Amino acid sequence: MTVPGLLIIISGPSGAGKGTICQSLLQHRPDIFYSISATTRAPRDGEQDGINYYFKSKKEFEEMLARDEFLEWARVYDNYYGTPRAPVTEAIAAGKDVILEIDVQGAMKVKEKAPEGVYVFIVPPSLDVLRTRIIGRATDSMEIINKRMNKALGELSKLYEYNYVVINDVVAQAVNKLECIIEAEKCQSQRYRFVPDGGVQATLIVPKS
Amino acid sequence: MTVPGLLIIISGPSGAGKGTICQSLLQHRPDIFYSISATTRAPRDGEQDGINYYFKSKKEFEEMLARDEFLEWARVYDNYYGTPRAPVTEAIAAGKDVILEIDVQGAMKVKEKAPEGVYVFIVPPSLDVLRTRIIGRATDSMEIINKRMNKALGELSKLYEYNYVVINDVVAQAVNKLECIIEAEKCQSQRYRFVPDGGVQATLIVPKS
Repeated sequence: MTVPGLLIIISGPSGAGKGTICQSLLQHRPDIFYSISATTRAPRDGEQDGINYYFKSKKEFEEMLARDEFLEWARVYDNYYGTPRAPVTEAIAAGKDVILEIDVQGAMKVKEKAPEGVYVFIVPPSLDVLRTRIIGRATDSMEIINKRMNKALGELSKLYEYNYVVINDVVAQAVNKLECIIEAEKCQSQRYRFVPDGGVQATLIVPKS
Repeated sequence: MTVPGLLIIISGPSGAGKGTICQSLLQHRPDIFYSISATTRAPRDGEQDGINYYFKSKKEFEEMLARDEFLEWARVYDNYYGTPRAPVTEAIAAGKDVILEIDVQGAMKVKEKAPEGVYVFIVPPSLDVLRTRIIGRATDSMEIINKRMNKALGELSKLYEYNYVVINDVVAQAVNKLECIIEAEKCQSQRYRFVPDGGVQATLIVPKS
């Protein structure tokens, strides 16, 4: 009787730093299963199939779509991106906690199919920091930067779609909060049941399997 | 604008070890306010007013009762016991987290008046351990021990009245879980609000005050 793992959705606007937080969390908790996306875009230099993405042909992706094999998916210009459902559900059934690092739009789609997930909203500590982060990684025009800023601000209003908020000021503190959220979720009383006839040796309150 | 603290109810059957856990938690987190009960029973050797209990005369206690100054109270044989409300609400308003260490019956009464509290159920790891703990601190007859065991078993069925379950096997681990629960509760999205017009310097997602 395996106790199922948690589905933890790490989401937030671009520039919130969710990637950095996930990487650091996985270093602390190598037991966590990190969900890898599938895409039809070509691998970039150094990217490996099954590590950065599952690289699929358009035909393969569309066949998976037809079989409803994605937890969420999107078409961005000419390419598909999606979260294959099977690796996630298998890991959870095997008792592993699963992390899904995903943008706000994707998180909202996952929520429709998996409302039981733990939805964590990573937010930048300030508008200044958000702008610096968005500029810092872009080689784009002010027009595009402003567009991204406005998109990020719109996404921040989705706050209450999430269970938890983690303000990403100091990464180590944000990761610690995330670890606490996972620990606390595992203590939620709905995850337990009382075994009054458990016998003398038995544990009386046991995790639900 | 102070962000209110949390009201954390640490409860469970006798023999669960809630006292040990609270003491250890307070050593880690001396900033937490530990709610002290009022009683009309006489102080025992070494007990100090305002530290172990607020010692009150029967008249004083009944006057407090008439003014509805208790979060919960009970009469046990000839003595009153109760949780004065004012120190708790004042500490929370000042931004302090408050711990209420209380039996199951008391916790259920507190829940009626303060459903917004964080209700943590401390449970023994097994029936064996529960029995050992109940015997260990009693100099009573088997009849009384069995009575306590049955009461504890009945109380364990109240599991779902609580938000969280902490199985008290290794105290340090149980305390760590409790600290995580507090941390995670502070990350709950309902405790935050979005400030879209916060200006460039402003934090965009701020705790509700």
